[in-house]
Amino acid sequence: MSKIKISVIPGDGIGQEVVPETLKVLDTLAEIHGGVSFQYETHPWSCEYYLEHGIMMPTDGMARLHQTDAIYLGAVGNPKLVPDHVSLWGLLIKIRRECEQVINIRPAQYIEGVTSPLAEPNNFDFIVVRENSEGEYSEVGGRIHSGEDAIAIQNAVFTRKATERTIRYAFELAQKRKGRVTSATKSNGIVHSMPFWDEVFQEVANTYPEIETESNHIDALAAFFVSKPQHFDVVVASNLFGDILTDLGAAIMGSIGIAPAANINLNGKYPSMFEPVHGSAPDIIGKGIANPIGQLWTAKMMLDHLGFEELGSMLFRAIKETIGEGIKTRDLGGSANMKEVIDHIIGKLRLYS
Amino acid sequence: MSKIKISVIPGDGIGQEVVPETLKVLDTLAEIHGGVSFQYETHPWSCEYYLEHGIMMPTDGMARLHQTDAIYLGAVGNPKLVPDHVSLWGLLIKIRRECEQVINIRPAQYIEGVTSPLAEPNNFDFIVVRENSEGEYSEVGGRIHSGEDAIAIQNAVFTRKATERTIRYAFELAQKRKGRVTSATKSNGIVHSMPFWDEVFQEVANTYPEIETESNHIDALAAFFVSKPQHFDVVVASNLFGDILTDLGAAIMGSIGIAPAANINLNGKYPSMFEPVHGSAPDIIGKGIANPIGQLWTAKMMLDHLGFEELGSMLFRAIKETIGEGIKTRDLGGSANMKEVIDHIIGKLRLYS
Ligand SMILES: CC(C)[C@H](C(=O)O)[C@@H](O)C(=O)O
Ligand SMILES: CC(C)[C@H](C(=O)O)[C@@H](O)C(=O)O
Repeated sequence: MSKIKISVIPGDGIGQEVVPETLKVLDTLAEIHGGVSFQYETHPWSCEYYLEHGIMMPTDGMARLHQTDAIYLGAVGNPKLVPDHVSLWGLLIKIRRECEQVINIRPAQYIEGVTSPLAEPNNFDFIVVRENSEGEYSEVGGRIHSGEDAIAIQNAVFTRKATERTIRYAFELAQKRKGRVTSATKSNGIVHSMPFWDEVFQEVANTYPEIETESNHIDALAAFFVSKPQHFDVVVASNLFGDILTDLGAAIMGSIGIAPAANINLNGKYPSMFEPVHGSAPDIIGKGIANPIGQLWTAKMMLDHLGFEELGSMLFRAIKETIGEGIKTRDLGGSANMKEVIDHIIGKLRLYS
Repeated sequence: MSKIKISVIPGDGIGQEVVPETLKVLDTLAEIHGGVSFQYETHPWSCEYYLEHGIMMPTDGMARLHQTDAIYLGAVGNPKLVPDHVSLWGLLIKIRRECEQVINIRPAQYIEGVTSPLAEPNNFDFIVVRENSEGEYSEVGGRIHSGEDAIAIQNAVFTRKATERTIRYAFELAQKRKGRVTSATKSNGIVHSMPFWDEVFQEVANTYPEIETESNHIDALAAFFVSKPQHFDVVVASNLFGDILTDLGAAIMGSIGIAPAANINLNGKYPSMFEPVHGSAPDIIGKGIANPIGQLWTAKMMLDHLGFEELGSMLFRAIKETIGEGIKTRDLGGSANMKEVIDHIIGKLRLYS
């Protein structure tokens, strides 16, 4: 019996509602598998925790995360309690950086039964590989002068190492998929970082002659996500561009409530982290109507990452069938509540086995 | 008879085809008006010009532009001839900066007869006000080390002055429209420039208590452009965020080929510049199939800016009716060529008068 240790951080808002319920799904899958058990270490780190302790996580928190095999996160942030840059840089971005989760991957695909805002969603199916450690998200910068003369300076920092490993990851992924990599750039307007990005992209591309490549400026690429999403396979982007493109990916799927993300540690020293793309939606907490699909798809990515691809596929099948049968929450046009969706999925998993 | 001097820069690719044809429309409008004549000073500045002269425009070029009332631009850039950052920073961005065109405004609205990729475009109608002089588009930055150790640093520079005037412009515009201003931010991830932007936004907002305001992170806002475009009235954004949002605006309209832009000089010292959002599309040059609507809508913005709002409205009516009647180019699903569209519009204008 292999034991997998999972750090669970429900976080804020609906994260606190959804995460515990989805653990039941993970347990069902472990039961079906028979040879694995998931052991959870749950942490109350959140904006409420901050109000009590003045920090988002305790000083030994990071060390405790490091001892586990994966981090399963709900949602972080509730600007009514704590300013976003405090809560996010104190927890989400802190973990991404200190656990060296240098790549963020987010799939987007057309799901039957989820109404896309696009008239012809054309079965798109792509993955955005996002640089997750540096770039435009940087603490380097500051202000000078005040009042009328104030100036804020923000530095974006692009290293060869981080740029290259992100782009290389995208090519490796494309080899297992349809074989096309699209690079998000803006070298026509942003004249230091983006030409550098383009050069590294070209160099890496030269070592994968079998992969089809293209480079689009972020403005045009955002437009293409709307006008021809079916064109894309793997899209590789800087931290900020990846952030924008993945929310757009969620938007064309039809709901941010279903989109998952994985923050991947590549060097094996620390755990990777799995989190839905949606926020903590404090306005609907306690109503039981939160959509658990984003969290569950996130769990599927975690299972795949931990080497349980069969369980991951089983879960994804159950998710898609459940939505297809119309068992879905209100944000997807259904009338089910969160628990009904979870129970239906668990029921299906038991039937498959 | 008032004489309006217009600098005309057809630029590259289809710009060279479309611009001269649309001048016929401007001349027709001048004729109808009776009291105005447009005098054109046409400049061949383009990538071809660069190949011959090693510069995108002659050294006295800027002075010549300064002597005219407006600049009417086609499209700049043809990466097959000249790298984009050379052609754009040598012409488009150079003019924006040296003519102090500190604001860029781009409307997006649902146009009957243009098929939006959205299933329910819901008659959206908004304007993006973009900071056009600084921000993420900055020449400040550089590189250190090479090979494996290379680092590129890009500075974004936000001054109080430029940030405030952009935001103020948006509020003034909203007063004449539906009274809502949405600010594009990313202060949860970009911790120096964006919190600064938010503070200035809040201060300006306090002086317009009658205007409804909201602030969205750029990732969520990009998603909302797809999921609820009808929600927006005036959207205010930094240089980069405005760039991305306006291409998205064009995408949800259904074609980048119809979207216009105005680069506005606010201090009256230099002319403003009017340019379509589309690029030079060198692949379709010479075929006569380029869509002239983006350029014509741009001409409408120029007419409005020069104080000929009646002519501007007349032109916009002719544009919409022509598209509505199905006289449109292939990119809009029609079969007309560029000249047929132009002739039809001219015919309509004559009928109105
Ligand atoms: C060509 C490029 C530099 C330019 C910009 O980003 O400003 C274009 O995309 C635009 O929006 O006018
Ligand atoms: C909350 C925010 C800092 C975060 C980001 O921009 O990385 C979020 O938008 C995401 O994409 O995970």
